Amino acid sequence: MRIAFKALLLLLLSVVTFEIFAQVVAWDSTFRPATYHVQVEQHKAYPASRKDIVFLGNSLTAHPNWNELLKNKHVKNRGISGDITYGVLERLDDVIAGKPAKLFILIGINDISRNIPDSLILQNYKKIVARVKAGSPATKIYLQTMLPTNNNFDKFKRHYNKEEHVSYLNKEIKELGEKEKVTVVDLHPAFSDGEGRLKQEYTHDGLHLTAEGYKVWARVLLEGKHLK
Amino acid sequence: MRIAFKALLLLLLSVVTFEIFAQVVAWDSTFRPATYHVQVEQHKAYPASRKDIVFLGNSLTAHPNWNELLKNKHVKNRGISGDITYGVLERLDDVIAGKPAKLFILIGINDISRNIPDSLILQNYKKIVARVKAGSPATKIYLQTMLPTNNNFDKFKRHYNKEEHVSYLNKEIKELGEKEKVTVVDLHPAFSDGEGRLKQEYTHDGLHLTAEGYKVWARVLLEGKHLK
Repeated sequence: MRIAFKALLLLLLSVVTFEIFAQVVAWDSTFRPATYHVQVEQHKAYPASRKDIVFLGNSLTAHPNWNELLKNKHVKNRGISGDITYGVLERLDDVIAGKPAKLFILIGINDISRNIPDSLILQNYKKIVARVKAGSPATKIYLQTMLPTNNNFDKFKRHYNKEEHVSYLNKEIKELGEKEKVTVVDLHPAFSDGEGRLKQEYTHDGLHLTAEGYKVWARVLLEGKHLK
Repeated sequence: MRIAFKALLLLLLSVVTFEIFAQVVAWDSTFRPATYHVQVEQHKAYPASRKDIVFLGNSLTAHPNWNELLKNKHVKNRGISGDITYGVLERLDDVIAGKPAKLFILIGINDISRNIPDSLILQNYKKIVARVKAGSPATKIYLQTMLPTNNNFDKFKRHYNKEEHVSYLNKEIKELGEKEKVTVVDLHPAFSDGEGRLKQEYTHDGLHLTAEGYKVWARVLLEGKHLK
């Protein structure tokens, strides 16, 4: 009985180890966007200020010009297309070093598309919050809830039909915010139609946002007075 | 003899017509970047100001954040990856409508990569200048010379080994600037190594720029006092 238990434990451990290892390998050798490091270097090269309002995330954050969208010269776009929570953790020291006034984070949908377990994504969220708090205590952190996707499109098949994961993680993000006394900007409801899909008029591919979509995001931030 | 001449003329005309037609078709159905219209709509949605300093072009213009690079809040990035002179002409009215203070243009390398004849590229340049002058006479226009590429890389094979076209068009751009009393910012020399290639340290793929490359571009603009 005791041996059977040990064997089971060993098996479980191998599975978990393999899973984590497989993800890291996938990120590094297959899926990391081609110009990821170029963009990281570009971000490092920009001047930093204690007045910075950093927007950190994936393509959803990277696509628009936030200075124009929010009419705010302090906003710094640190979105990189295709990024996942592991990438954010890798480049978090660059953000922390600048000691920005505010840090807005939206990350996770690409983790979900790669089938990275929710528990690992959540663990990474916790690490992100803890490291920012420790490294730059004056930085006000804003966690933004993940947006829905829309499977009426067909370009990002690995991203659609993951509502269960988005919804679970958004619930956990809110709990994390409460526990860590970090503001949560609940974007999800403003983008969701009656059936939980990303509203058709806010997207052109079921994942990314149109100008109309970005207007909504900007409105949620401005009406919440989060930029003040 | 006269009939032979007419036939030759007709043949020539058909070839030219076909070539132009083929290019337009190629732009619209095959090569226009997938999210081109999304980006055009996003640009339309941003607020415009008479103080704007618009940077218009392709991926070379699109990639960095010019506000951060130049520490200038008036700069508006209107670069779209993959764009060509025909695309700039299509969306030029959006720029003109905003009546910006300054307009910096860098376009043409993707035209060259598609084998669009230099004469047509140059003709488009002339149209761009004429339309901006007519539509927004107070806008100061800056034509930037095209950068070299580097065939030591292998990602953009259609863009490499086109030095002859880049060099011819840069000469013509300078002449156009002189004739039209439009400032020409001669970027090319700052990026060219001893053999006419894009300097290795400024690129990661023989076409696009690294953070080091963008520092050089910013320095040329700032030392020329073109942003004042």
